[in-house]
Amino acid sequence: MRIAIDAMGSDNCPEPDVAGAVEAARTLNETIILVGDQKIVEAELEKYNTADLSIEVEHAPDAVSMTDIPSEVVKSKPNSSMHIGLGLVREQQADAFVTVGHTGAVLGIAMLRKIGLGRIRGVKRPALGLIYPIGDQPFLIDNGANANCRPEHLLQFGIMGSLYVERMQGIESPRVALISNGEEEGKGNLLIQESIPLFEASGLNYVGNIEPKEFVGGEADVAVTDGFTGNMMLKTAEAVARYISDALRDNMMANPRTILGGMLARPAFGQLRKQLNPDEIGGAPLLGLNGVVIVGHGRSNATAVKHAIIQAHQLVENRVVEAIKEGVKRFDVAP
Amino acid sequence: MRIAIDAMGSDNCPEPDVAGAVEAARTLNETIILVGDQKIVEAELEKYNTADLSIEVEHAPDAVSMTDIPSEVVKSKPNSSMHIGLGLVREQQADAFVTVGHTGAVLGIAMLRKIGLGRIRGVKRPALGLIYPIGDQPFLIDNGANANCRPEHLLQFGIMGSLYVERMQGIESPRVALISNGEEEGKGNLLIQESIPLFEASGLNYVGNIEPKEFVGGEADVAVTDGFTGNMMLKTAEAVARYISDALRDNMMANPRTILGGMLARPAFGQLRKQLNPDEIGGAPLLGLNGVVIVGHGRSNATAVKHAIIQAHQLVENRVVEAIKEGVKRFDVAP
Repeated sequence: MRIAIDAMGSDNCPEPDVAGAVEAARTLNETIILVGDQKIVEAELEKYNTADLSIEVEHAPDAVSMTDIPSEVVKSKPNSSMHIGLGLVREQQADAFVTVGHTGAVLGIAMLRKIGLGRIRGVKRPALGLIYPIGDQPFLIDNGANANCRPEHLLQFGIMGSLYVERMQGIESPRVALISNGEEEGKGNLLIQESIPLFEASGLNYVGNIEPKEFVGGEADVAVTDGFTGNMMLKTAEAVARYISDALRDNMMANPRTILGGMLARPAFGQLRKQLNPDEIGGAPLLGLNGVVIVGHGRSNATAVKHAIIQAHQLVENRVVEAIKEGVKRFDVAP
Repeated sequence: MRIAIDAMGSDNCPEPDVAGAVEAARTLNETIILVGDQKIVEAELEKYNTADLSIEVEHAPDAVSMTDIPSEVVKSKPNSSMHIGLGLVREQQADAFVTVGHTGAVLGIAMLRKIGLGRIRGVKRPALGLIYPIGDQPFLIDNGANANCRPEHLLQFGIMGSLYVERMQGIESPRVALISNGEEEGKGNLLIQESIPLFEASGLNYVGNIEPKEFVGGEADVAVTDGFTGNMMLKTAEAVARYISDALRDNMMANPRTILGGMLARPAFGQLRKQLNPDEIGGAPLLGLNGVVIVGHGRSNATAVKHAIIQAHQLVENRVVEAIKEGVKRFDVAP
């Protein structure tokens, strides 16, 4: 297997990107292709002992920055590491592309058949799935690729999410739910209310509507929402977790007694950090494209990059793209 | 001042409702009118020494339950404690109505001019405001009254929220922001994108779009969102806080060292509980009605009920309803 990784993706590139790629090459024992400015990447690579590893460098003279506007960058930077990396997948010189750069940009480029990969036939909108690093690690889709959705889009997110979970986690007939502001009939906004009959008729294992509490509690394997709501949930969860963690640390520093308590209780906090650690998940799959694409957070460290690559490896191994190609035919998605 | 409180609102009614009313009567030194089944309420009241307090009981033979459907209960239970309590405000026998019962039901009843209070002239949609018990206690509106919104609704939420914060917190020209998935131009769903020009032209102190992180960080005094998104944010915040708290407690119980650490650090956790305590806020104002209405959580305890009544008292004292009546004229809200 050959996995291409954007060496110019992260906020601190190329350090975490290259470090994570080296770790992944060692863990997976597969070929990793670093895509980026050849001189910069090779200089960074020299820091590591890569003698036993299969690591290649693919030159890309340009890079997408976080301030670039997705609709513009598609055409204005044809030699960016994203363009070149996705091109490797399109030309079957790589099995997957991983980036922790600008999500909107990689989605915009990947959507186009000639420049990137194009959508799977029948898929209206690729979507960003995400395993929540919380509780039973439930899967939420969409987390921000589509700010405006129609019911048939949500249904496809449900289908793609169900197939992803089925292949990746080996769960047969995963429980699929819609995220809503209540479980009772009549709850939900118009989008949810109009989506319910589509889910009921879909052949998916649709288990109804759930609220965020039930989502966190793992009462569904796949939770479906529009990309705006999903993004707000994700960012609210991050903000609240950060607030609590900061407040608790400040409170602990109040006096010698609580400082000592904090020191003794440190393993409990370490355990919590592990439980909430997005680095162990590393990245989020962009589902619905003609190829495996994993995106990660711009603030990713080497561990997160490594795990994003490992996730790409698992998607290829489990033939998730092929499953979605079959799935959109199997499920009736005509609106 | 005379404040009516639904004695049959909470999940454990009438205990917390009556206990909170007694505490509020003592704290505020105003007249509290308990609305509910006379026999039940009076039997509960006998548990307290109310000799020095001004507490009245208004008989309401019926009560709204959490399983009632709002659109039905409006007509099917004309003698519920919500109908009678709102009627007291309509007939100027009370200055405010407080309930920790079914939010949808009290909104549905209150919206109707003849049965409840009616909307303020010019207000298209009453909305549920909420002070977040976090950080600088930012104000979010709407938190669930309106699952489907148009831009002119969001603008009115912003106006009502701005006037609420101005009157209640004494902040002149409060900073008003839209909740979005990014601050840059082009971010947001269609609703947000179409709302921006209305906010820019409104005369409000509109400071742009903010993400949940900035909201929690207090970068706006008033954050505006549709009721579906607002409700998802609120419920996600609650779910994540609960998950973290439960996980940390479980981790602490792992071994004697962490148990001891937890005991020593207890004040830090107590402090955090205070920082995140919704009971100290007690309730959320339903803004846009011809009268003061405060709703609280069904799980409210006596402290939360007391603070909900105190908040109602502050709204009356600060003439928030009158400010909104003036405000919808002052700000240009024609779509």
